[in-house]
Amino acid sequence: MVVELELPAAADFHVHLRDGELMKTVVPTIRNGGVNLVYVMPNLVPPVTSVARALSYKADLEAIDPSITYLMTLYLCNDVTPEVIYEAKKAGIAGVKSYPAGVTTNSDAGVVSYEAFYPVFAAMEEVDMVLNLHGETPPREGVTVLNAEETFLPTLLDLNKRFPKLRIVLEHCTTAAAVEAVKKCGPTVAATITAHHLYLTIDQWAGNPHCFCKPVAKLPSDRDALVAAAVSGDPKFFLGTDSAPHPRSSKQGSKTAAGVFTQPYALQYVAEVFQREGKLDGLKAFACEYGRAFYKTKELGFESDERVAEKLVIRTEPSDVVIDGYGDGDSAVVPFLAGQKVWSLQWKQ
Amino acid sequence: MVVELELPAAADFHVHLRDGELMKTVVPTIRNGGVNLVYVMPNLVPPVTSVARALSYKADLEAIDPSITYLMTLYLCNDVTPEVIYEAKKAGIAGVKSYPAGVTTNSDAGVVSYEAFYPVFAAMEEVDMVLNLHGETPPREGVTVLNAEETFLPTLLDLNKRFPKLRIVLEHCTTAAAVEAVKKCGPTVAATITAHHLYLTIDQWAGNPHCFCKPVAKLPSDRDALVAAAVSGDPKFFLGTDSAPHPRSSKQGSKTAAGVFTQPYALQYVAEVFQREGKLDGLKAFACEYGRAFYKTKELGFESDERVAEKLVIRTEPSDVVIDGYGDGDSAVVPFLAGQKVWSLQWKQ
Repeated sequence: MVVELELPAAADFHVHLRDGELMKTVVPTIRNGGVNLVYVMPNLVPPVTSVARALSYKADLEAIDPSITYLMTLYLCNDVTPEVIYEAKKAGIAGVKSYPAGVTTNSDAGVVSYEAFYPVFAAMEEVDMVLNLHGETPPREGVTVLNAEETFLPTLLDLNKRFPKLRIVLEHCTTAAAVEAVKKCGPTVAATITAHHLYLTIDQWAGNPHCFCKPVAKLPSDRDALVAAAVSGDPKFFLGTDSAPHPRSSKQGSKTAAGVFTQPYALQYVAEVFQREGKLDGLKAFACEYGRAFYKTKELGFESDERVAEKLVIRTEPSDVVIDGYGDGDSAVVPFLAGQKVWSLQWKQ
Repeated sequence: MVVELELPAAADFHVHLRDGELMKTVVPTIRNGGVNLVYVMPNLVPPVTSVARALSYKADLEAIDPSITYLMTLYLCNDVTPEVIYEAKKAGIAGVKSYPAGVTTNSDAGVVSYEAFYPVFAAMEEVDMVLNLHGETPPREGVTVLNAEETFLPTLLDLNKRFPKLRIVLEHCTTAAAVEAVKKCGPTVAATITAHHLYLTIDQWAGNPHCFCKPVAKLPSDRDALVAAAVSGDPKFFLGTDSAPHPRSSKQGSKTAAGVFTQPYALQYVAEVFQREGKLDGLKAFACEYGRAFYKTKELGFESDERVAEKLVIRTEPSDVVIDGYGDGDSAVVPFLAGQKVWSLQWKQ
């Protein structure tokens, strides 16, 4: 039975919009994925470490598509002091993203020990900004791409204990262990779940560069735990696609850039998983509401009433074919499930 | 301290030499890797399932480089009957290779259940031919690239029990569990270990198509168990590189062909691992002797005295740079550790 499902606009709390030409390719695809609010990751080269740079980046994004709400975040490093936090809060910046050094794309300037940043976290707690954690232990003896997230979880629990009022998001969680850790934390700790991690396990990215990302997709039991968390109705889990576009030349080179590009079909991918689980009525909470609530988008004035009121319709029938690539040849960006059919989505006028 | 190490020629008991143009590229690299005897896998398209085809393939290989001894094997499928085994034995074919259906490159015609092949195995046991097992459970619920080998091990133990005199090689073993299972079996069961699995773990092939192969490299603890088995002096473990060349276009395409190309530097790669472990004096047994002994190359008349008498010298100093690719552009075959330095190797005249 084909259903037409009316929903508010989805919000995607973890996106990589890049800069330069790639930004011009990617930003125009956001609305196609049913999204009108995005939380923009700061891992440009060089990373976004100052308020001025974040605001100028935001202006660049708005120039391309002013119909999207862009929530900005700073890249945690020594430049980000408590003073910068106060300045950022005033400027309407929503959070600070922490990358463990060397773990993911463009994270060379990331943190190693959190202790030096306790004063920064205290300031963030004071002014109610969000800390976004890339939750993986940096490479060291005994740490692999498979257990890097799980070995990070004690750090998450510790930070929650030290800063109980600090809102923390464990980004793109990929393991059953992470889901359990987030549940165990207080109500100020939440997690984003990507679209692709609701689909993939290790067998899919082994041999497929377009399914390879960090954190890597793990075992079927982990994928099942993510799906269960997403459809559970627990407000601690909400959508953050970690859509990470790379040109084909970087995905199909002698090394494979980490990242799955899901932006243009973000809500469509997720919706089919909810239907498969018999939980289509929970899609709205996961993709549209819980993230906005956690980020206090209304309370903190991030979104206009007009944008909140936008509606879209998803038709529950595979009818749209995922585009093979955005752009030309080697510089094209290949979306997740390219060539396969997904549900159609239309914005209501 | 740089040492000049004199060794007999190495023997590589698991090679993919392909056919057509790729064969003409790959075969001439064998001697560069210190090898003068190879056990040639039958997974061409279509696979080598008849004695006539195996002999014609052998003639093709000898036409390219007659200074190599080629041991031939048949691809296990319904065409391979006990009668074919008797014919193969007479024709000097050394063994039969079994691929679980769909698990590795060109294995679509492989076996699913072994029971139908018990009469074939009985005939092989009778005439003393070797059974080569690709030891991975085919895809099914609960099986991933990580546990496919471990879930296969009960089958290995069972086959050894049913056919205690049948010589069986667990090919390209990749896990600590496989090493233990092979040790537990009777003396007719051995295992090949590749060069690249002495180096790689999951973290190296995650994001590097040229390090991706099946079975995939596993955890550091598994890699360490393979290194320990290789240098242990246990004659059940010997070299079989599973060198698996693919053109760059297949390694860096939208899907990644499984296989690491180690042929041109087979012995050089292995030698450095033995030195790192302080076991350089065990290299000869692992790379030159144990495989020949298990395959009874002398007793069964596979090798000429002249070839057995060949010697080479390895100089224990990184001085040769691994070639970037054999062939041109997209059809070039990229060897393992391309661009890095390895020890130099020279045949004695």
